[in-house]
Amino acid sequence: MINKLTIFGVGLIGGSLALALKKAGYCNEIVGCSRSEEHLQRAVELGVIDSYTLDPKQAVQGADMILLAVPMRAIPAILNTIASHIGKDAIITDAGSAKGSVITATKTAFNGVLPPNFVAGHPIAGREKSSVEAAIDDLYIDHKVILTPTDETSNDTVSKVRDMWQVAGATVETLPVKQHDDVLAATSHLPHILAYSLVNTLSKSEYGDAVFDYAAGGFKSFSRIASSDPIMWRDICLENKSAILTALDKFQLDLTELSDAIREDDSEAIEKTFNHAKSTRDANIKD
Amino acid sequence: MINKLTIFGVGLIGGSLALALKKAGYCNEIVGCSRSEEHLQRAVELGVIDSYTLDPKQAVQGADMILLAVPMRAIPAILNTIASHIGKDAIITDAGSAKGSVITATKTAFNGVLPPNFVAGHPIAGREKSSVEAAIDDLYIDHKVILTPTDETSNDTVSKVRDMWQVAGATVETLPVKQHDDVLAATSHLPHILAYSLVNTLSKSEYGDAVFDYAAGGFKSFSRIASSDPIMWRDICLENKSAILTALDKFQLDLTELSDAIREDDSEAIEKTFNHAKSTRDANIKD
Repeated sequence: MINKLTIFGVGLIGGSLALALKKAGYCNEIVGCSRSEEHLQRAVELGVIDSYTLDPKQAVQGADMILLAVPMRAIPAILNTIASHIGKDAIITDAGSAKGSVITATKTAFNGVLPPNFVAGHPIAGREKSSVEAAIDDLYIDHKVILTPTDETSNDTVSKVRDMWQVAGATVETLPVKQHDDVLAATSHLPHILAYSLVNTLSKSEYGDAVFDYAAGGFKSFSRIASSDPIMWRDICLENKSAILTALDKFQLDLTELSDAIREDDSEAIEKTFNHAKSTRDANIKD
Repeated sequence: MINKLTIFGVGLIGGSLALALKKAGYCNEIVGCSRSEEHLQRAVELGVIDSYTLDPKQAVQGADMILLAVPMRAIPAILNTIASHIGKDAIITDAGSAKGSVITATKTAFNGVLPPNFVAGHPIAGREKSSVEAAIDDLYIDHKVILTPTDETSNDTVSKVRDMWQVAGATVETLPVKQHDDVLAATSHLPHILAYSLVNTLSKSEYGDAVFDYAAGGFKSFSRIASSDPIMWRDICLENKSAILTALDKFQLDLTELSDAIREDDSEAIEKTFNHAKSTRDANIKD
């Protein structure tokens, strides 16, 4: 049970967790905090949170669980503001898509020492809609949440954050920080970058927007993630920069190789690449 | 009405057209032809075609409509074989994803002169499953078919091929050959290449196939087209090479620019790219 849960950033991710925990009767009180009063009022109206404040220090007063579910670049300032106002036993976690930078920011906010009551987390559940209006109480059911505890993290912290996400329906796993950031750079961040980039390239077509008139189902599903929240994804690019650039460089090299194969009519090389990709995907991805 | 329809390549595309036309009672007879007797037998068993032959010349005997629905690289040999065995009034069309190369192959097969009874066509409807087992009678409903008639094509040819696809439920449009090939290179061929290439890059991950363990919905939909038929897509790459390489080069330049922005922490440039892509997609693609 959580007595008071404070959620920074009551959008799809924070809002859906709030709704799931409310449904389960797992929190006595859920308080929202962000920079937009209009947005927080809407969250109260929708029954997502019980109350709100625009003041981060007030928001964490008496909280036993604090979730940072804001775009990643907003996390350090919040941590710096609340660090000395958090109760001794309050647990801090986040929902960002990259973990190394959140851990660094937390260490900085807590005078260079990672507190035992902090664990970074990443619910792997998203939709193209990112507002509180899109929040649903079953978003996390059958989805994974990855926690990346460090040597400093207490077992109690991991256990309480795990419990919270499990109550919301998620399967919770732990991963080393670097592995999380590398893997997510490859399977999540890179595809988003490619989808955004492709739509951007097409938008400059000599045929204008008519280029999209004959787009079929393949393009729709490929580019769906290019409708994701630009600010959220801008921040992820900046916060997981190193792993993303590594993945992007590898991809560019492979793509150039494939491009060369097409240029040289190397039928065998093209077929081999496509075959290998198809069998890899068929073996690893359901649907 | 079609008296005898001959379909070369009775897979998803040819098979689904056959099923739709049968349902509408639009053909007296549908004959299949391919290199695999086992496959053709299965098509007869499934009620997709009435009969089959492995001999292309025999297949077109008495046919008033001939559809080439084989992987694109198989088209020239079939055309060369059947060219002198086709009835005077028989219409020839195809279902390939690139049109310039089919037109060139047809011209070659007919001694350098494009016959008036030929029109290249492209049903924009596909699925990841490509076999005759995946054929369905409603595949073309609410889908577009693009025809790319040339100066040599007779109106009667366009009209008869249009009628056939419309009976199957499709909306038929015409486009200049180059525009078709450019647009499809950008919105269909390029995304397939990127999806195949990304899965290929990921398959070499230091984390092995575990890299896919945390893949979410975004990756699934982005990479769905990497489960498409490798032979079909190899052929499209080779047959629409020039337009694809142009699109690919533009994409690589834009991606490098975005990559540089990430490397340089150029928050504004990243946000601008993502915003522009999102608004372009939201404005042009439904769902």
